[in-house]
Amino acid sequence: MVLNYAAPLTDMHFLLQEVTGLAAIAQLPGCGDATPDTVAAVLEEAGRFAAGVLAPLNRVGDRESCRLEDGKVITPQGWSEAYKAFAEGGWVGLGLSPDYGGQGLPKCVATPVWEMWFSANTAFTMLPQLNTGEAEAVLLAASDELKATYLEKLVTGEWGGTMNLTEPQAGSDLAAIRTRAEPQADGSYRLSGQKIFISYGDHEITPNIVHLVLARLPDAPPGVKGISMFLVPKFLVNADGSPGAQNDVRCVGLEHKLGIHGSPTCAMSFGDNGEKSGGATGWIIGEANRGLEYMFIMMNEARFGVGVQGIGIGERAYQQALAFAKDRVQGRDAVSGAAGIPIINHPDVKRMLMTMRARIMAARALAYTAAGWFDVARHSTDKATADKARRYVDLLMPVVKGWSTELCQQVCYDAIQVHGGMGFVEETGIAQHYRDARIITIYEGTTGIQANDLVGRKVLRENGATLRELIVEMRSVAKELAAVENLKSLAGRLEEDIAALERTLDWILANGKDHLAAVLAGAVPFLHLLGTVCGSWQLARVALAAARHAAAEAYSADYLRGLVELARFHAHALGVQALSLSAAIVGAGDTVAESEFALA
Amino acid sequence: MVLNYAAPLTDMHFLLQEVTGLAAIAQLPGCGDATPDTVAAVLEEAGRFAAGVLAPLNRVGDRESCRLEDGKVITPQGWSEAYKAFAEGGWVGLGLSPDYGGQGLPKCVATPVWEMWFSANTAFTMLPQLNTGEAEAVLLAASDELKATYLEKLVTGEWGGTMNLTEPQAGSDLAAIRTRAEPQADGSYRLSGQKIFISYGDHEITPNIVHLVLARLPDAPPGVKGISMFLVPKFLVNADGSPGAQNDVRCVGLEHKLGIHGSPTCAMSFGDNGEKSGGATGWIIGEANRGLEYMFIMMNEARFGVGVQGIGIGERAYQQALAFAKDRVQGRDAVSGAAGIPIINHPDVKRMLMTMRARIMAARALAYTAAGWFDVARHSTDKATADKARRYVDLLMPVVKGWSTELCQQVCYDAIQVHGGMGFVEETGIAQHYRDARIITIYEGTTGIQANDLVGRKVLRENGATLRELIVEMRSVAKELAAVENLKSLAGRLEEDIAALERTLDWILANGKDHLAAVLAGAVPFLHLLGTVCGSWQLARVALAAARHAAAEAYSADYLRGLVELARFHAHALGVQALSLSAAIVGAGDTVAESEFALA
Repeated sequence: MVLNYAAPLTDMHFLLQEVTGLAAIAQLPGCGDATPDTVAAVLEEAGRFAAGVLAPLNRVGDRESCRLEDGKVITPQGWSEAYKAFAEGGWVGLGLSPDYGGQGLPKCVATPVWEMWFSANTAFTMLPQLNTGEAEAVLLAASDELKATYLEKLVTGEWGGTMNLTEPQAGSDLAAIRTRAEPQADGSYRLSGQKIFISYGDHEITPNIVHLVLARLPDAPPGVKGISMFLVPKFLVNADGSPGAQNDVRCVGLEHKLGIHGSPTCAMSFGDNGEKSGGATGWIIGEANRGLEYMFIMMNEARFGVGVQGIGIGERAYQQALAFAKDRVQGRDAVSGAAGIPIINHPDVKRMLMTMRARIMAARALAYTAAGWFDVARHSTDKATADKARRYVDLLMPVVKGWSTELCQQVCYDAIQVHGGMGFVEETGIAQHYRDARIITIYEGTTGIQANDLVGRKVLRENGATLRELIVEMRSVAKELAAVENLKSLAGRLEEDIAALERTLDWILANGKDHLAAVLAGAVPFLHLLGTVCGSWQLARVALAAARHAAAEAYSADYLRGLVELARFHAHALGVQALSLSAAIVGAGDTVAESEFALA
Repeated sequence: MVLNYAAPLTDMHFLLQEVTGLAAIAQLPGCGDATPDTVAAVLEEAGRFAAGVLAPLNRVGDRESCRLEDGKVITPQGWSEAYKAFAEGGWVGLGLSPDYGGQGLPKCVATPVWEMWFSANTAFTMLPQLNTGEAEAVLLAASDELKATYLEKLVTGEWGGTMNLTEPQAGSDLAAIRTRAEPQADGSYRLSGQKIFISYGDHEITPNIVHLVLARLPDAPPGVKGISMFLVPKFLVNADGSPGAQNDVRCVGLEHKLGIHGSPTCAMSFGDNGEKSGGATGWIIGEANRGLEYMFIMMNEARFGVGVQGIGIGERAYQQALAFAKDRVQGRDAVSGAAGIPIINHPDVKRMLMTMRARIMAARALAYTAAGWFDVARHSTDKATADKARRYVDLLMPVVKGWSTELCQQVCYDAIQVHGGMGFVEETGIAQHYRDARIITIYEGTTGIQANDLVGRKVLRENGATLRELIVEMRSVAKELAAVENLKSLAGRLEEDIAALERTLDWILANGKDHLAAVLAGAVPFLHLLGTVCGSWQLARVALAAARHAAAEAYSADYLRGLVELARFHAHALGVQALSLSAAIVGAGDTVAESEFALA
């Protein structure tokens, strides 16, 4: 009854080749492995593993959940075996440095692969995903000794990784962190404190787990400027590199959650056994009091990953809804009156499915494009080119995270709606995606936090400079559209939506100083506005590429026509939201800031 | 940790008095009991029962679910006792005829009471709600003998009721129903067939259950014109009115659902024991082959009820999110930099809470207004007044159902978001509302079905006549706004949104014949458009009433100011969606209708 997953390889290849510009990225130093053949082989093999191994375990994880027994976290049946095969396949370090056991493929190639894992089994995939962010932070800031001991284990996935940030009283506010780290004579530290919401904080899947922990030194200044980062292994490491004595770290509870049941969400205690151990043994990463800075490196990686998670879950839900709508026969054709038609022929069901696919393709095109900028920023030898790509990545990171994850909710919502009453029955399996997805607009920074980052640290701080650059790029695409006969109507639409974005930007810049509360009340709508216009812009690029290929052989003519149809639908059905988002940001900010009694 | 519920009595009284026009309704024949004192006493007592008895059971139902044991459905702990008290309190028949044991209060008074039940415990409330729709159908169409035997039992809630419509192959398409009814010499019928998704199809709470069942007579024409309605009791009724022998009806399975776990969703088998019994014994209601017509009487009642359910669940989620946001201390004030502030002070959290409250108040004002029209339509002695009220009810019924239930999803979504990570943890209790709510845009007709009803049977069939009448009323409210000093900015906004509604109506009427598929692709967006403009219109009426009362004593000045703030927020943050909804309906219909390959 529950549909399996098939990787959308055609969409992925089309976007990589035609929109991300993979061919150019493969010319960059260090990206030479990304030949067309290699990329095709990697995507195909990943698709096979995702569909064959991970996807069938998705329901298992949802049904079984994780258990805490005798202080040990038991993950669902099949999890360990699947992880072993995953790590052995080299998938953990696909986009990580070959110097430490990674495959070193460009981020734009690794991104569709991670999307597949998230589609297939989102709760499972959180485990290896944690390794990637942790490896980036260790690589950047840790001592050579720590790198030598831990980095390859993380990159290959031999050991698991975690991020220990949140505390019960702190939530998203890391300034309130209380976990303490006492320096020891041998250069190590003893940590004590409680952390909550730690994904894969404990499990038996890998023989060791490497925790990154935010904590305060005794003499640390208050607030975010007094946070340092520590590496705390579950088992101390022997001289030969093998796991040794148990450290004073343990999982003291598991959350009972709405979704992602297969992923253990742990309450962690460090230095609980303090009398005897004096705390959990750890080592500082980088310099004292710079923990937040390193954390943001890890976090940026993780935020991008969560955006891709949104695309992945959405794709899975879409595939299942599409299959149901083609199969389910019900009702009459509204126009012809023919009876017994598949429900995909009902205009409203077709509208929902097109909305789902348009949203996924728009978010996917933006994420892959951003992944390409990552690669350019990292590898380009031309400083101006690299700098520009870095500016674009920084500006759009909160959009890839915040907008893609919000869209995913709507996609999963529609996927249930397409199923009708069957959608509400857990056996159908579509409700799991709806439940699983609900966390992704919250963890790694809520949508509100992404939006404040976008408006405050990205747009206002630089007076909108990068966004204005981006608007110029968008306008040039609108101009290209205007020059293609059957895309002209899209050009006008895109121009109008860009204009709405620009006048909203002007309003934000004009009011950011004196009416900051009103501006921030529009931060999330502005994130949606920028995302929506980016979506229309990216699908316009898709439509232009499809039009260029009209006579080519790599893709079927029907497929290419479908892409143009999708871009047209996005522009007219979804892009138009720019109008009301802009009006709401400009018109409603003061009504929020000035209201005193509306919530009484 | 999970917040209890408090009935929003001030909001309810304000709307009843100032927006619904309760005083005038109480002057209608048959409505004389609705004096201010009686209404106040009823609402207060209902609020007490909802908060004290039903609300604490809500989590119990979610955790325990229902079980099928030895062919019997076991409902959660406390359900039976609560129901007994509920029925004894006279709540089942609050708005039903006093000729059969009801309280005969106007619908506009019963509506806030039902809202409280849905807020307190939505899964529980589905049980008595079923009685109300069934009683209306029996009252209208059943024989005197059936009425004498069953009606008072249904109205008082001594026995339960059900609606048996859907079958496995039929879903929303009742034309596909296969259950058969064979006439017997004694005037009864023998029914055999399978029904699914039957809420409270079996339970031990009441000593008998009265099923209304759609089935086909042997000579029935195919499709919807061959459906008749039957009354099938769980236990045949003895001459003295007591439950007698078991009928051949049983629950053969329970669904495992995303939400409303406390409500058993049954697969029912009629005439399973056919060899011995020849089928389940039932009696026809009204005339043969007119079952669908009667069903729609019941369904209209039920659809209105589901709209109110959306308001009720939304209110509960809002109360919990508001309390959390006032209590949870986190982060710094974006403007002043002050540390350790409750999160309600963060502009984005405040925006979410205002969005929730504005949506609930808008949907509530519309539902109460519609309930008042029901009363006028039923009781007014002036034919023109009654007819107009009936036209308005008919036009807006799909909006009350479809729009209120869709808004509820967004309210529950935001309620989780306000909670951050705590919202994803089931112990917090907010996720239950999100899960429970997910069915209400599906059952009693999906949003797509409501929207087709609105566009097809309501708007197109009468060439938009009633909607044009309504637009005139809306415009007169906009004119009133323009005459009040501090409401002028609302007037312009409302005018613009009404204009968007009107030009969309014009487009629908111009294209309904030749481009029906394109028009129907915009049906759900049109339902949202009409709902949104109705919401701004209703909150404008609220603001006008609040402005009139500025110096009055019945409500505090702060409360009245809060209502004006809310109306202003709705207009500028939510009403503006009319712009993009209109653009999407007009601009995207063809892109849906003409796309052939986008979903390939």
